[in-house]
Amino acid sequence: MKTIFDRIIQMSLEEDAPFGDITTNSIVPADRRVSGRFIAKDDGVLCGIDIAQRTFELVGGDFEMVKYFKDGDSIKKGDVIAEISGNARTILTGERTALNLMQRASGIATATAKAVKAVAGTKAHIADTRKTMPGLRLLDKYAVRVGGGVNHRFNLSDGVLIKDNHIAAAGSIKNAVEAARRHCPHTLKIEVEVENFVQLYEALEAKADIIMLDNMSNEDMAKAVQIIGGRAIVEASGNMGEKDLSEVAKTGVDLISIGSLTHSVKSLDISLKFSII
Amino acid sequence: MKTIFDRIIQMSLEEDAPFGDITTNSIVPADRRVSGRFIAKDDGVLCGIDIAQRTFELVGGDFEMVKYFKDGDSIKKGDVIAEISGNARTILTGERTALNLMQRASGIATATAKAVKAVAGTKAHIADTRKTMPGLRLLDKYAVRVGGGVNHRFNLSDGVLIKDNHIAAAGSIKNAVEAARRHCPHTLKIEVEVENFVQLYEALEAKADIIMLDNMSNEDMAKAVQIIGGRAIVEASGNMGEKDLSEVAKTGVDLISIGSLTHSVKSLDISLKFSII
Amino acid sequence: MKTIFDRIIQMSLEEDAPFGDITTNSIVPADRRVSGRFIAKDDGVLCGIDIAQRTFELVGGDFEMVKYFKDGDSIKKGDVIAEISGNARTILTGERTALNLMQRASGIATATAKAVKAVAGTKAHIADTRKTMPGLRLLDKYAVRVGGGVNHRFNLSDGVLIKDNHIAAAGSIKNAVEAARRHCPHTLKIEVEVENFVQLYEALEAKADIIMLDNMSNEDMAKAVQIIGGRAIVEASGNMGEKDLSEVAKTGVDLISIGSLTHSVKSLDISLKFSII
Amino acid sequence: MKTIFDRIIQMSLEEDAPFGDITTNSIVPADRRVSGRFIAKDDGVLCGIDIAQRTFELVGGDFEMVKYFKDGDSIKKGDVIAEISGNARTILTGERTALNLMQRASGIATATAKAVKAVAGTKAHIADTRKTMPGLRLLDKYAVRVGGGVNHRFNLSDGVLIKDNHIAAAGSIKNAVEAARRHCPHTLKIEVEVENFVQLYEALEAKADIIMLDNMSNEDMAKAVQIIGGRAIVEASGNMGEKDLSEVAKTGVDLISIGSLTHSVKSLDISLKFSII
Amino acid sequence: MKTIFDRIIQMSLEEDAPFGDITTNSIVPADRRVSGRFIAKDDGVLCGIDIAQRTFELVGGDFEMVKYFKDGDSIKKGDVIAEISGNARTILTGERTALNLMQRASGIATATAKAVKAVAGTKAHIADTRKTMPGLRLLDKYAVRVGGGVNHRFNLSDGVLIKDNHIAAAGSIKNAVEAARRHCPHTLKIEVEVENFVQLYEALEAKADIIMLDNMSNEDMAKAVQIIGGRAIVEASGNMGEKDLSEVAKTGVDLISIGSLTHSVKSLDISLKFSII
Amino acid sequence: MKTIFDRIIQMSLEEDAPFGDITTNSIVPADRRVSGRFIAKDDGVLCGIDIAQRTFELVGGDFEMVKYFKDGDSIKKGDVIAEISGNARTILTGERTALNLMQRASGIATATAKAVKAVAGTKAHIADTRKTMPGLRLLDKYAVRVGGGVNHRFNLSDGVLIKDNHIAAAGSIKNAVEAARRHCPHTLKIEVEVENFVQLYEALEAKADIIMLDNMSNEDMAKAVQIIGGRAIVEASGNMGEKDLSEVAKTGVDLISIGSLTHSVKSLDISLKFSII
Repeated sequence: MKTIFDRIIQMSLEEDAPFGDITTNSIVPADRRVSGRFIAKDDGVLCGIDIAQRTFELVGGDFEMVKYFKDGDSIKKGDVIAEISGNARTILTGERTALNLMQRASGIATATAKAVKAVAGTKAHIADTRKTMPGLRLLDKYAVRVGGGVNHRFNLSDGVLIKDNHIAAAGSIKNAVEAARRHCPHTLKIEVEVENFVQLYEALEAKADIIMLDNMSNEDMAKAVQIIGGRAIVEASGNMGEKDLSEVAKTGVDLISIGSLTHSVKSLDISLKFSII
Repeated sequence: MKTIFDRIIQMSLEEDAPFGDITTNSIVPADRRVSGRFIAKDDGVLCGIDIAQRTFELVGGDFEMVKYFKDGDSIKKGDVIAEISGNARTILTGERTALNLMQRASGIATATAKAVKAVAGTKAHIADTRKTMPGLRLLDKYAVRVGGGVNHRFNLSDGVLIKDNHIAAAGSIKNAVEAARRHCPHTLKIEVEVENFVQLYEALEAKADIIMLDNMSNEDMAKAVQIIGGRAIVEASGNMGEKDLSEVAKTGVDLISIGSLTHSVKSLDISLKFSII
Repeated sequence: MKTIFDRIIQMSLEEDAPFGDITTNSIVPADRRVSGRFIAKDDGVLCGIDIAQRTFELVGGDFEMVKYFKDGDSIKKGDVIAEISGNARTILTGERTALNLMQRASGIATATAKAVKAVAGTKAHIADTRKTMPGLRLLDKYAVRVGGGVNHRFNLSDGVLIKDNHIAAAGSIKNAVEAARRHCPHTLKIEVEVENFVQLYEALEAKADIIMLDNMSNEDMAKAVQIIGGRAIVEASGNMGEKDLSEVAKTGVDLISIGSLTHSVKSLDISLKFSII
Repeated sequence: MKTIFDRIIQMSLEEDAPFGDITTNSIVPADRRVSGRFIAKDDGVLCGIDIAQRTFELVGGDFEMVKYFKDGDSIKKGDVIAEISGNARTILTGERTALNLMQRASGIATATAKAVKAVAGTKAHIADTRKTMPGLRLLDKYAVRVGGGVNHRFNLSDGVLIKDNHIAAAGSIKNAVEAARRHCPHTLKIEVEVENFVQLYEALEAKADIIMLDNMSNEDMAKAVQIIGGRAIVEASGNMGEKDLSEVAKTGVDLISIGSLTHSVKSLDISLKFSII
Repeated sequence: MKTIFDRIIQMSLEEDAPFGDITTNSIVPADRRVSGRFIAKDDGVLCGIDIAQRTFELVGGDFEMVKYFKDGDSIKKGDVIAEISGNARTILTGERTALNLMQRASGIATATAKAVKAVAGTKAHIADTRKTMPGLRLLDKYAVRVGGGVNHRFNLSDGVLIKDNHIAAAGSIKNAVEAARRHCPHTLKIEVEVENFVQLYEALEAKADIIMLDNMSNEDMAKAVQIIGGRAIVEASGNMGEKDLSEVAKTGVDLISIGSLTHSVKSLDISLKFSII
Repeated sequence: MKTIFDRIIQMSLEEDAPFGDITTNSIVPADRRVSGRFIAKDDGVLCGIDIAQRTFELVGGDFEMVKYFKDGDSIKKGDVIAEISGNARTILTGERTALNLMQRASGIATATAKAVKAVAGTKAHIADTRKTMPGLRLLDKYAVRVGGGVNHRFNLSDGVLIKDNHIAAAGSIKNAVEAARRHCPHTLKIEVEVENFVQLYEALEAKADIIMLDNMSNEDMAKAVQIIGGRAIVEASGNMGEKDLSEVAKTGVDLISIGSLTHSVKSLDISLKFSII
């Protein structure tokens, strides 16, 4: 059945096999069958198993897939994630694309889950950013959710985040917030990035819905949370991938957004091991 | 001027700003100007500076960019890579896409350069694989070249790599190579993946152009290189990202292909620092 | 210069002249020039004059356009909106597409302005809905803004609106709001549609950010506004195009969303009158 | 099964739910089922019921639809047009797109049927124009046919209509018609727009296949019809939407083309009423 | 400047150089310049010289082209058609695509001109068919016009041609013509294919606008022309590429449509001869 | 099932029936059935029968097809290639596109087979070139393989062919080959075009993998083959379509590449003969 990832998968398949898999088509008979097992080569959180299955569907051809884990499940090195059997050309042609997508998604989910675990027991949520790989944002953001994180705005057209340049252009945080409130859909919250306490107070005065504390020390963030006192959602930001997230979370922020979750991904190693035909 | 990366850049911009940057368009006047500097936040090899410039061109709007480094140059933390000034809406709308692309490309080039350096003094080249991010293969492979590496086949349609399943389907390496030679363009070399010495001898008998030594120990690879004796190009493969590349290179292989160059990329940190307007 | 409407304009031109304008190309010499004036045939609010100009640019060919009014300006029957002169093939080929787009947009802006005027002196804003023409939503929503209205969510992916089916599936408004808050980006406000006071109280309990009063009488809406007491944005909805908007506004609602602004558009009549060449 | 409207429907769905319906996907379980009834909220002519069904098919997911009326049928306020039941996510995600398309199409069919009825008993046919909504011309023209009207040329590439600028460029109607006859496919009739009797005689001399009487009074049109005497098809044109069509038809014209049928559409109100699940 | 052939040219370039010309980009410096001459290697009618120029524009990069002949001109073996000089990468990358398009178009124009010459002195026109190369119909039909021929309908959507199956389904030619007249735009002429005199009389009775005489002998065609007596356009059809066109024309038919003009094209040999750089 | 030709077929159908087959849809009832036989009107090699079948699938609608021959089979004039029966609208709408594709492909396969036969008994293979019809390269190259030929590089991005301009830019054949070897994937062989014996020796010195003998006499080619002595693959090129291939093959070359196989195609005549319904 059609999925919102079809466009990404189609693009991937066209990139990887614009005129088919010439090695396979030259050597493997059209009716040859093969079976294999997707095996975890490392520990992590699985993400993208349905996308992998959909990849083979979009290659075309008949096959069957039995899945032993689902997205969000923890997997251990050696686990058999799924078994696939069917037309050899279909499976060999789709193999790399399916793995590339699932390994990246699982890598993101795994990193997210680790961050979520680091802040367990606090009210902080782990959020993503727009530092995703071009063309793959839908996948990247899905993987963050599967890993237990939450999504920030999807793009520049569906969220409002006021930064220093906007403020400078508007003359003040107040002016900027008002302009955004006047021109942007009322269905969107208005977020303001602040770097110091003066800006923080101005953002509160302007009734920002979300305040992003950018590159502040944990001490300052804790103080900021107290000042805000529940009047806005508080987001910690700025190289969070290199911080002790547990300490950041203890400042009382609502969200910690981490660019490295998606801009510096370590793929989770998953292999498709064939039963030689 | 039109480039082969335009499709990737367009796709990225449409993903990130399908209906424009609503924050900027609400707050920043259409004729506002801004200027900023691209600054390296870490050491590495620059890749994608022209792609970044092209991104702003494809956003549309007037701007100027002065570049102090070019693709392939080493950059140090703190270096000013380029300066940009022009229409504020253009620059703010394109900023994230330009950075996402350049940071990934520079991350790949940096990792590749490091691998190239590790094998310096040997004849081994560092090669990429098809473990790239879907939709971004052209960018990823360009970055590998910029980092001093070489490219393996681009996709399943333009290179021949015979693996165990192909061999099983054909009955023997000899049969598989002959089928490929018969059906694939004569302009392509034929590569065979081997896991042991029996297969190696069979591949040599079949006159494979390239032999991939998959997951062999360094000792076995050195022995294989001697057996091959120049009759084929020799490629080392199999989790090479985790090996001591210098030791691998000393076995005498011609190429070391490394999936992690592109499947597990650490972005090179580059920021666009604005002179507040 | 490239605009966010280019995709719509391109689609329109390809629909209207897939192989060019055969009448014009058969009869009018390639270097023939023509000039004409865009004239308002009715009173209204102009919207789309830059889109009209961009249409001729995307046809290709040289021409000049002098604009006497800009989007958002009131125009009277007989006003010369703009003058155009240039290559006759370019102008004749683009004429209908330019007019179709500008007339629809101006029709929407005019209807919106009329609604905005009807609620003048109250705090109510006029908002659009998703009842736009497929493929033209960006244009339709732009026209609503030009007419003085505000935009509701752009689509199902960038706004949260909980209706009866969602509530039924979740078991209660509380459950539904919590599920949305957990799974949707925190940058989005959560809107709940209510049809009676029980639902209204439940939505307030669940801390909905926006409450849509659906098909309520003016009396009930006034009462609802009082109950809400500023705890949520209040939106009036339900065949508002047929209501006395002034009376609706007096109930104290923040927004009145009107589907007919975009689903039942009366084009504003604008003609391109040529000085016969 | 694939239809010629698939492209319009796909475009509409991608516009309305690029990343899915986040409200529904957050709240409604993937296997939830729902059922509902499409109910006419006004009298009119139904158009687009198969397009509505196809919309849900293109969303993907299983559902069933029982249709009680078909395109072209008269419907009365309160009529149950069709019943749908199936996967809740599928139906909720496709609802708005299905309704937007069907309501517009039914609005056009209804207006056309009204015009057709006005000229009943005469030989006049009601025709559309190119004043359709960009991207939706195929739908708009289908709806005109369903309403009992006939279609004028689809676009600038598949019909010949010679207007004043063409005549001026060619030097005379005779020259213009000859140029068109020489360069355009012989499968197309040649239509000439005339505004007075001199032009009318010239068009007859040039053996135009169709003569469009533009903005003439009914008296003049009656006289023109007599002059033409069956030597060409006669089309009445020019703000026909504001005329008494019965009177126009009595002039003896063969066709009355009405731009407002498609440029100023009043949607026919149809709702999808759910049986709360 | 944009042309209606841009889509074909873009498609061609993407097919021929999806990631650029790797040979050229590896060897030829980015600022290298080259110049060359397009030389006719055979006699014929030139078609596509502007398309060739546009091809290099769409490759991108600076170059200049001086054209000594224009579309429709007769060229002799040895003629220098045009000179080009500019960026070497641009010209080398676009060369093959430019030639492929121009050679096919010139081949079609040449064959058409030959057929036109064969019927000189008669009233017969040479027409094309829908037997064109998929994706290239616009080019193929343009080339027929450039060669002096005329175009039949462009596709199934913009012309009416009633064949035996349609007649069988309708019960009679009369029924079929009436159904087409009722449902198809009145701007289209109605053509009926007939194979014998009974069908011919029926088609005349039904007032067909065009009658296609399919696979008739010249004698029968002459007789048919007499019977028709000017009441319909007469088209000769059926393997006309293998007939003596002069004899066919003498039967008095208005049009002779020839599938082989476009389905069996002999390219006109044109080479791009470089002044070695 | 999805095929690599789907994109070509879709493009063809959209070109030939953008809004459906108006003749058929006006006249033939939606549930009408028809049956017909694909009949060879000439002798040749069949190619594209599955593509024809896929065309009707992509039109949509139910039908059945029984195939008596498969791609690569020799067919004689009068042979019934396949029978089709099913929905009349589906079959009539897809007929021309299916035939256009199959007739071209069969024409290419037939010409290729003839060339292959001409060189029977020698070691020479018949190869194609990039002189294919834009947009149809995949089809054209498939047809060459079906006819018994082999494929040269697919495009400029996946093969290396060094010509005079490259050599001039590099300074020498040696420099050019080295540059290509350094920058192009090692999976590609390097081919050098030579026109005389000096260049031939240089190409051998540079260890070119393939040497193309361009426009040499048979005598020179025989001499060149001897000089090369197995050190490179030898390809004969240059208007080979006009040569006595048997004589060329006797020179001992490995490959003969023939542009006219695809740039000057004579369609194989195949008709779809209906059993009148």
